[in-house]
Amino acid sequence: MPTFVQILDFIGTFAFAVSGIRLASAKHFDWFGAYVCGFAVAVGGGTIRDVLLDVTPAWMTNPIYLVCTALALVWVIIFGKHIVHLNNTLFTFDAIGLALFTVVGLEKALMLDYPYWVGIIMGTLTGAAGGVIRDVLINETPLIFRKEIYALACVAGGTVYWICREFAGADPFVCQTAGGITVFLTRVLSVRFNICLPTLSEK
Amino acid sequence: MPTFVQILDFIGTFAFAVSGIRLASAKHFDWFGAYVCGFAVAVGGGTIRDVLLDVTPAWMTNPIYLVCTALALVWVIIFGKHIVHLNNTLFTFDAIGLALFTVVGLEKALMLDYPYWVGIIMGTLTGAAGGVIRDVLINETPLIFRKEIYALACVAGGTVYWICREFAGADPFVCQTAGGITVFLTRVLSVRFNICLPTLSEK
Amino acid sequence: MPTFVQILDFIGTFAFAVSGIRLASAKHFDWFGAYVCGFAVAVGGGTIRDVLLDVTPAWMTNPIYLVCTALALVWVIIFGKHIVHLNNTLFTFDAIGLALFTVVGLEKALMLDYPYWVGIIMGTLTGAAGGVIRDVLINETPLIFRKEIYALACVAGGTVYWICREFAGADPFVCQTAGGITVFLTRVLSVRFNICLPTLSEK
Repeated sequence: MPTFVQILDFIGTFAFAVSGIRLASAKHFDWFGAYVCGFAVAVGGGTIRDVLLDVTPAWMTNPIYLVCTALALVWVIIFGKHIVHLNNTLFTFDAIGLALFTVVGLEKALMLDYPYWVGIIMGTLTGAAGGVIRDVLINETPLIFRKEIYALACVAGGTVYWICREFAGADPFVCQTAGGITVFLTRVLSVRFNICLPTLSEK
Repeated sequence: MPTFVQILDFIGTFAFAVSGIRLASAKHFDWFGAYVCGFAVAVGGGTIRDVLLDVTPAWMTNPIYLVCTALALVWVIIFGKHIVHLNNTLFTFDAIGLALFTVVGLEKALMLDYPYWVGIIMGTLTGAAGGVIRDVLINETPLIFRKEIYALACVAGGTVYWICREFAGADPFVCQTAGGITVFLTRVLSVRFNICLPTLSEK
Repeated sequence: MPTFVQILDFIGTFAFAVSGIRLASAKHFDWFGAYVCGFAVAVGGGTIRDVLLDVTPAWMTNPIYLVCTALALVWVIIFGKHIVHLNNTLFTFDAIGLALFTVVGLEKALMLDYPYWVGIIMGTLTGAAGGVIRDVLINETPLIFRKEIYALACVAGGTVYWICREFAGADPFVCQTAGGITVFLTRVLSVRFNICLPTLSEK
């Protein structure tokens, strides 16, 4: 039986992979290219984190991420045009993935005895770096640097986790939940109310 | 005396470096930029593999790859316009390099006790990731995601290796040869008969 | 009390971060994107070096680089339009950073018992790879491959270090100073007299 976290992980991976595959298809990538692009979004952030932390990337220890990306590709190929009606569902899944990946990345850094500020960066990388890799592969300026709050939601969630753990002395599960919910709500509300960070005027 | 594999490795590295240098020159890179781009194609895939496998990148243990890239640069500078007549030869060299790099990457992962599916991915990264790095550096959408079968030839070769070794119980040398020939033939035939993967229609 | 090298390191990091933030602002990145871009320029080269050398990236052991990038962002936001008058100062700071980072990267590789040629490459990566990452993030063809001498100044400085140490038998501090000054002068003079490498004609 998969645990609750494993189910969330699968949902998040699926949503991230779909996001990569759809952008790849808009660029006329072939099926293989779309698969690679989806896989890069799904595992790219975690891979950068694990290389920086000097541990074996998670996807090299379990083929579930390859399988999940394959299912995402099949799903996009079959449902094609109709996916656009599911945009809200996919957006919710994506925000769930972002929240979960942030907490997972943060925990992994803390388990290796890194300080909280490294943990917050690792959580943010886990959640947001896959999207940057995707945008580099499809040769676009990374979206997360120009649009609604995305990576900053991870930073907010990581900060809430740190406050809960260090100052409120809450137990790990409470901190994880509070951090994850913060990421999710920050992301969803910033898109709902179209909240953006200021840009720098051209210098 | 260099071994047969070392000669193939040199030929493959040379062909990969020439491919990077020629694309860099089309983008008006200077000599140094062209050299870096050629080097990135030649060793980029193997470097990503070695970072993921957590071993020292092969090019940091032997300056032959730097020398080989330098020879490729000199060769492109001297022969310039005439290289276009050698396109078929270079294509053959490139396919040899692809086949060899795939088998080398696969073997390296298996030696470190990774399962076959990780080995096949590592072989594919070794063969194909250098070209992706090149295309990111010259700011183009990676070709291998949109054109003839390239990375998929590595996957096919790795799969044949796996079948030979695991199901047919062949000895390593036979598996390597069968895998390498599969990569080479898949690549050459897909270009010869213009076989492409389907693309996803825009979603 | 910070040492002389730490002060130079801070100045170099600040100048590198400002360069990333200004280019990001020209691309209409938001504050967070500009921060990430500045941070990538400041620590990107050192991170690639440390991943290749298999040691923990320097910025993960000391939050000073995060703080320094934050100061650079605040400084660009406040002084905005007036920064253009400081271009010469920033260029000098950037060249100081390039010189220092090259020597630091070279030393780090030598301390890990790598040969000089690996050290020179690591020094060059430390100095110049951050700028390549920046250009990939803002979706431009990397400047250092097309314009004045930049990465080659690092190679020149590393070579002078090697000659001083191996052939003249000078002590490390003299070698470091000679190498650093070579990087600085090569960079400054190549811009002052507009010295470029030849480009390859299109092939």
